Amino acid sequence: MKTLIDKAEVLIEALPYMRRFVNKTIVIKYGGHAMTEEELRASFAIDVVLLKHIGIRPVIVHGGGPQIGETMTRLGLKPQFVQGIRITDDPTMEVVEMVLGGRINQEIVQLVERGGARALGLTGKDGSMIRVERKLVGDQDVGRVGKICNVDPYPIRAAADAGFIPVVAPLGVDMQGVSYNVNADDAAGALAAALHAEKLILLTDVEGVKNGQGEFLHQLSEIEVKKLIAEGTIREGMIPKVECCLDALRGGVSSAHIVDGRMTHAILLEIFTDRGIGTLITL
Amino acid sequence: MKTLIDKAEVLIEALPYMRRFVNKTIVIKYGGHAMTEEELRASFAIDVVLLKHIGIRPVIVHGGGPQIGETMTRLGLKPQFVQGIRITDDPTMEVVEMVLGGRINQEIVQLVERGGARALGLTGKDGSMIRVERKLVGDQDVGRVGKICNVDPYPIRAAADAGFIPVVAPLGVDMQGVSYNVNADDAAGALAAALHAEKLILLTDVEGVKNGQGEFLHQLSEIEVKKLIAEGTIREGMIPKVECCLDALRGGVSSAHIVDGRMTHAILLEIFTDRGIGTLITL
Amino acid sequence: MKTLIDKAEVLIEALPYMRRFVNKTIVIKYGGHAMTEEELRASFAIDVVLLKHIGIRPVIVHGGGPQIGETMTRLGLKPQFVQGIRITDDPTMEVVEMVLGGRINQEIVQLVERGGARALGLTGKDGSMIRVERKLVGDQDVGRVGKICNVDPYPIRAAADAGFIPVVAPLGVDMQGVSYNVNADDAAGALAAALHAEKLILLTDVEGVKNGQGEFLHQLSEIEVKKLIAEGTIREGMIPKVECCLDALRGGVSSAHIVDGRMTHAILLEIFTDRGIGTLITL
Amino acid sequence: MKTLIDKAEVLIEALPYMRRFVNKTIVIKYGGHAMTEEELRASFAIDVVLLKHIGIRPVIVHGGGPQIGETMTRLGLKPQFVQGIRITDDPTMEVVEMVLGGRINQEIVQLVERGGARALGLTGKDGSMIRVERKLVGDQDVGRVGKICNVDPYPIRAAADAGFIPVVAPLGVDMQGVSYNVNADDAAGALAAALHAEKLILLTDVEGVKNGQGEFLHQLSEIEVKKLIAEGTIREGMIPKVECCLDALRGGVSSAHIVDGRMTHAILLEIFTDRGIGTLITL
Amino acid sequence: MKTLIDKAEVLIEALPYMRRFVNKTIVIKYGGHAMTEEELRASFAIDVVLLKHIGIRPVIVHGGGPQIGETMTRLGLKPQFVQGIRITDDPTMEVVEMVLGGRINQEIVQLVERGGARALGLTGKDGSMIRVERKLVGDQDVGRVGKICNVDPYPIRAAADAGFIPVVAPLGVDMQGVSYNVNADDAAGALAAALHAEKLILLTDVEGVKNGQGEFLHQLSEIEVKKLIAEGTIREGMIPKVECCLDALRGGVSSAHIVDGRMTHAILLEIFTDRGIGTLITL
Amino acid sequence: MKTLIDKAEVLIEALPYMRRFVNKTIVIKYGGHAMTEEELRASFAIDVVLLKHIGIRPVIVHGGGPQIGETMTRLGLKPQFVQGIRITDDPTMEVVEMVLGGRINQEIVQLVERGGARALGLTGKDGSMIRVERKLVGDQDVGRVGKICNVDPYPIRAAADAGFIPVVAPLGVDMQGVSYNVNADDAAGALAAALHAEKLILLTDVEGVKNGQGEFLHQLSEIEVKKLIAEGTIREGMIPKVECCLDALRGGVSSAHIVDGRMTHAILLEIFTDRGIGTLITL
Repeated sequence: MKTLIDKAEVLIEALPYMRRFVNKTIVIKYGGHAMTEEELRASFAIDVVLLKHIGIRPVIVHGGGPQIGETMTRLGLKPQFVQGIRITDDPTMEVVEMVLGGRINQEIVQLVERGGARALGLTGKDGSMIRVERKLVGDQDVGRVGKICNVDPYPIRAAADAGFIPVVAPLGVDMQGVSYNVNADDAAGALAAALHAEKLILLTDVEGVKNGQGEFLHQLSEIEVKKLIAEGTIREGMIPKVECCLDALRGGVSSAHIVDGRMTHAILLEIFTDRGIGTLITL
Repeated sequence: MKTLIDKAEVLIEALPYMRRFVNKTIVIKYGGHAMTEEELRASFAIDVVLLKHIGIRPVIVHGGGPQIGETMTRLGLKPQFVQGIRITDDPTMEVVEMVLGGRINQEIVQLVERGGARALGLTGKDGSMIRVERKLVGDQDVGRVGKICNVDPYPIRAAADAGFIPVVAPLGVDMQGVSYNVNADDAAGALAAALHAEKLILLTDVEGVKNGQGEFLHQLSEIEVKKLIAEGTIREGMIPKVECCLDALRGGVSSAHIVDGRMTHAILLEIFTDRGIGTLITL
Repeated sequence: MKTLIDKAEVLIEALPYMRRFVNKTIVIKYGGHAMTEEELRASFAIDVVLLKHIGIRPVIVHGGGPQIGETMTRLGLKPQFVQGIRITDDPTMEVVEMVLGGRINQEIVQLVERGGARALGLTGKDGSMIRVERKLVGDQDVGRVGKICNVDPYPIRAAADAGFIPVVAPLGVDMQGVSYNVNADDAAGALAAALHAEKLILLTDVEGVKNGQGEFLHQLSEIEVKKLIAEGTIREGMIPKVECCLDALRGGVSSAHIVDGRMTHAILLEIFTDRGIGTLITL
Repeated sequence: MKTLIDKAEVLIEALPYMRRFVNKTIVIKYGGHAMTEEELRASFAIDVVLLKHIGIRPVIVHGGGPQIGETMTRLGLKPQFVQGIRITDDPTMEVVEMVLGGRINQEIVQLVERGGARALGLTGKDGSMIRVERKLVGDQDVGRVGKICNVDPYPIRAAADAGFIPVVAPLGVDMQGVSYNVNADDAAGALAAALHAEKLILLTDVEGVKNGQGEFLHQLSEIEVKKLIAEGTIREGMIPKVECCLDALRGGVSSAHIVDGRMTHAILLEIFTDRGIGTLITL
Repeated sequence: MKTLIDKAEVLIEALPYMRRFVNKTIVIKYGGHAMTEEELRASFAIDVVLLKHIGIRPVIVHGGGPQIGETMTRLGLKPQFVQGIRITDDPTMEVVEMVLGGRINQEIVQLVERGGARALGLTGKDGSMIRVERKLVGDQDVGRVGKICNVDPYPIRAAADAGFIPVVAPLGVDMQGVSYNVNADDAAGALAAALHAEKLILLTDVEGVKNGQGEFLHQLSEIEVKKLIAEGTIREGMIPKVECCLDALRGGVSSAHIVDGRMTHAILLEIFTDRGIGTLITL
Repeated sequence: MKTLIDKAEVLIEALPYMRRFVNKTIVIKYGGHAMTEEELRASFAIDVVLLKHIGIRPVIVHGGGPQIGETMTRLGLKPQFVQGIRITDDPTMEVVEMVLGGRINQEIVQLVERGGARALGLTGKDGSMIRVERKLVGDQDVGRVGKICNVDPYPIRAAADAGFIPVVAPLGVDMQGVSYNVNADDAAGALAAALHAEKLILLTDVEGVKNGQGEFLHQLSEIEVKKLIAEGTIREGMIPKVECCLDALRGGVSSAHIVDGRMTHAILLEIFTDRGIGTLITL
């Protein structure tokens, strides 16, 4: 009997979110362990397919750094980074395109299809969706690394309107039609803004954002984020993530979430429970 | 952590039902304690409003026997029954109409409206929706008690299409426009069939159907029902309920449920859990 | 031959009105002898059904004072009035709801249905359509008598769009969901305004408005109304009626008519003849 | 007071016809005195415009024999007939086209436009609407006189759907694109059938059909028609008219009427009174 | 091989025009040799039907001066002109209406129908489309010659929307319903403006506009037109044509063309080649 | 002057094809020199974009054999073939997916985008569009080479409906979600059939089909194809191409064309000239 009351409570907690998010777009940056461990891949597929089935419109943006590195090595190319950004000469770019657009993207499409929803793979080059210009690191040219200038979300909308879960590889194209490598978090954020998404969810390999005392933070405002960066509590890899969230929020996304992708059903719990499991960032 | 996994499981259990029942009609016979006890009234309103909000189309059919009796007494009329059926002479019928159509119906409308959904009260006379002929008990005339001949569910559909939760008082009208008292379970079953409802849920004041050993039965087929009636395990008041369910099923309703209305959130748990909490009757 | 020319003239007189009023809403306050005498009831049903059949959208708002009084007496309650307004304590209100919403409303629904159109009964509580606050008479509390604050005509529109003639009982509900008795003329006027009705027709038991010389007035402007009230020519029961008309006109209704409901086919003649048979009130 | 009751009766008689004929097509053959006398022309325009305004779809098919003859004479051509059919050599045909399509058709268009409805002139050549082959009288070639083979009512429907009253000149065209003169009654009947018209009304210069005793006949079945022809009671000019009616009825028109066009408002009275003023012919 | 490359070039030149003009209206003034010589008539029909078939909306406006003169002569009427404008007394107007509306219009309808498209003949009187007032030449009354005041292009739009090629005779009607003769170029220009046409094409019997040196001009601006008129290079009959073009352009037509109608397929070449074959006039 | 008549003739020849093919789907197998030589790539892009702009729906299916071989070599893999079919072990399949789906597909997308139309890249795995089973060569297992079982053209339709030119890489997926290499001609043929395409055009590096005397054949029926194969005139690489055409025709495609992709604007000339430039194969 206890169980039933508990169940009823979970439902009463979750149902209003269902109502609120019907027909809303949720952009999920997919990467890290959630993409490589079998159980997490399965739980991710279940979550995304369930979202789709109850009328929410998920959009998946994926990364693929490790797989790029591995293929480069097989081809005798040596991965090099400046401030965490891959130096992308032409042979490297060829590998980036093949691995992101040709292999990983299609693996995720099949993962979702086997889970019971229809998926359609896209890259930022389809419909020239993600327009970029060459990005400098400081004043150093790191090759074909793109800074997003403009996003035309029409291909994603068309795919979603046709009933597909769009799966997007983070590539971009400049005005001359040259293709570029784009950071996956940035791509997810920019697409979320362009799609007027309800939520941006970044699946990461950390628990979320913590304060100086190591306590997990359920919610963070822009001001708090800035303070935590200033005091050095948020640092390194987490900085671009929170900034990507803030950019998306400023671009019109209703809420942004940094969520631990190593937890099974992380997406479902983040969306359908009052407190969520990750860190919610708001303006 | 355990809790989160539990929550995820409840959601994964419930979400497919949401998908399956979106835009489907569920007819709920509302009566007994669920209608008279304050806490159960509140939980009923929450359940029905949640159903509506996630895209399901609930239809409420209510009874009102005790309230009719009470008003008759105040008017100096003496309630009389033959085989559980109220003898309905003209003064009694006037009370029936006033209490069911004028008072209880509107109380439920307000209960739902306060819960946050829009409700619209109807009787079987609106649009001449429930056509009846005079019902005999054996060969005894019991007055204006109607046997349902035909149901035109259009007024309910129109109300539901307009976004209302229809609340229906079980009155009927014959070809001469004379009004009749109708059994609420029968009305719910006939409306469910006419509406091609996904489910008929009869809220009762018992736990469900039990077998000869007193064990609760989660599911019953038509054949099992007949066997249990033959052995005398199902008897008295439960017989018309299970027969009403069978009639609805034969009329095209996908499933019929006899559910204990004394449990809070009985409707939610019946609909969104794999096992349900009542007895599911199928053909 | 003379007859044919006469007929042609009647048609040529009437046809333009048909054209003008197609798809327009006409709110009719129904009460008095027109509601109690059999021949007038029949002629009322014919008129309303004909309006509906030629594409006009009639809305009926009914009263029921005498019937409330009679039922109160049978229940041992004593009707009491202050300045013509019924003192409505809780037992009285229960009777009001049962008689208006449960009995009279449904009788009119059946009257119209038998006449050949589809009717659907509503009260001001359905969809919380008529929002009221407690009305004081002078500074005396007369119980659950409501003053209309706000009207949401959506339930009526939904019913009319679905092809029904809406029949409305003059009940209201406050923000706490408590129900109130509302004056039927006021309800008709407020609904007419909220529906942007073409016409408001008040069926009364007098011939119309007369001037000081006892001459019948075919048409009256707001200024003339005020003058006639000032000189005492319009008085007592007629004052709230003409004020109700003026309120409706100010609320956007195109014309308001006070019509003698004791004449057969009063509605038809008022609408389809150049001169009408009642008093037309304009701003 | 008497007048009002009479008016109500006329309305109650007429209103059901309005309802029945809304959106229905009524084809009117227009000719004779109704086309040449000023008062009748005015009354015709009023009738047709009223029909249009209350939602009926009138289609006018006109003749023009006398005007053709007059123009021929002015051009020095001599009208000649075989069994009442005009011998139509090429110079005659040129006059027919100019008079019917260029003059009379446009005069009627303007008559209707001035009456307050929109009219659009067509001939059977527009859209190759009336396909004909050469008609022989017995075995005599009478020139460009067409026998209707096929009617494509699309141009009329397009004009009516666009809100115009179509006014049609009875010309036809063969498969080689050569134009022909067509009998106006035949054109009206064939168009009525092709349009699945509700009614075909032939305005004539006689009172209607009479029996052997000279008594006016309100209604005639196919069998009675045949009998009256056999006895010689229906003869000469009336024979093709009743046969045209029978053809239209066999082609799916609901009713055909031969009406005295010399009576003012003949069309209105025929359509909106129970008995009509002409002879109704049915299968 | 050369031929194929040439063909590809013609197609690459033409295809963008197809795209640009799809669903656009092109008004063609049809007259002169193009209307009287058999080969040119055939090539005109081919061009217009092809335009229609690839999704362009041609509208034909025709003249008919010579044919009017000829018929007048046969009727013993003597054509008279003031400054090139026909003096149009009532007998002349009757001929104008019969010849333009009854004969020429229908001949063009049949020409187009035989070419494989659907055509529908209209005059400026249909739907009172071309409203005129009496035009004076200087201060001389020249009879029923109309100056266009207002154009309601709805009948043309309705015909084109229904899939027809509208063929328009240049007649007009004043506010009293009296009909007038209208200059065909003026009618074409006014209709083009009212229809927001993409192009106005005037087919003429000259090669186009030339400069003082007799050199053909491919394109002319308003300023250049005025200069050429001022120096007397553009004169007489060409002046009203270029002014009609300028009026149409000011009324919102995108481009106006004066094209030599004596060249086969003049319309096709003007529309689908970069340079065109006539003189393009722009603001 | 000669040129203008020639131009008119080319247009009159081409325009009916435009009309016939508007909104029709044309599937183009793109490969060989047309894909590798810069001038031919440019001419291909012009042709495809023009088709799109005039309302035709082109679908591009591409191959990529040489590029796969080259990348394999760089990765130290050795391409091997059995009867012209690539032996596709898992490492080879990884290269196939990366090169076809990741590189070539996106290069064509950009080629079309730069040409001025919107393109969207797909593989047979998107939406599990091309379902395959493992193909044996004789009874030899050649690895992940797929034989097409079923095609769901919905993703292509969705992309085309949204305004994109779909660009499809010939990959397939079996019921377990394993991906396979598919022959590009076969994929083009099967997609053309599933899309009920108007045309299938195979761009090849030969002139077309020739008879035993080496004469080019403009048109070939199924029977003639079989005879030419039997005599050995059609042989080797051409056999699967003509069989692929016949399969598509049997599947409902209206016509199939084998066209020399080495000619500039081959597609335009094939579609818009009466004779075409390749070999038309019909049932």
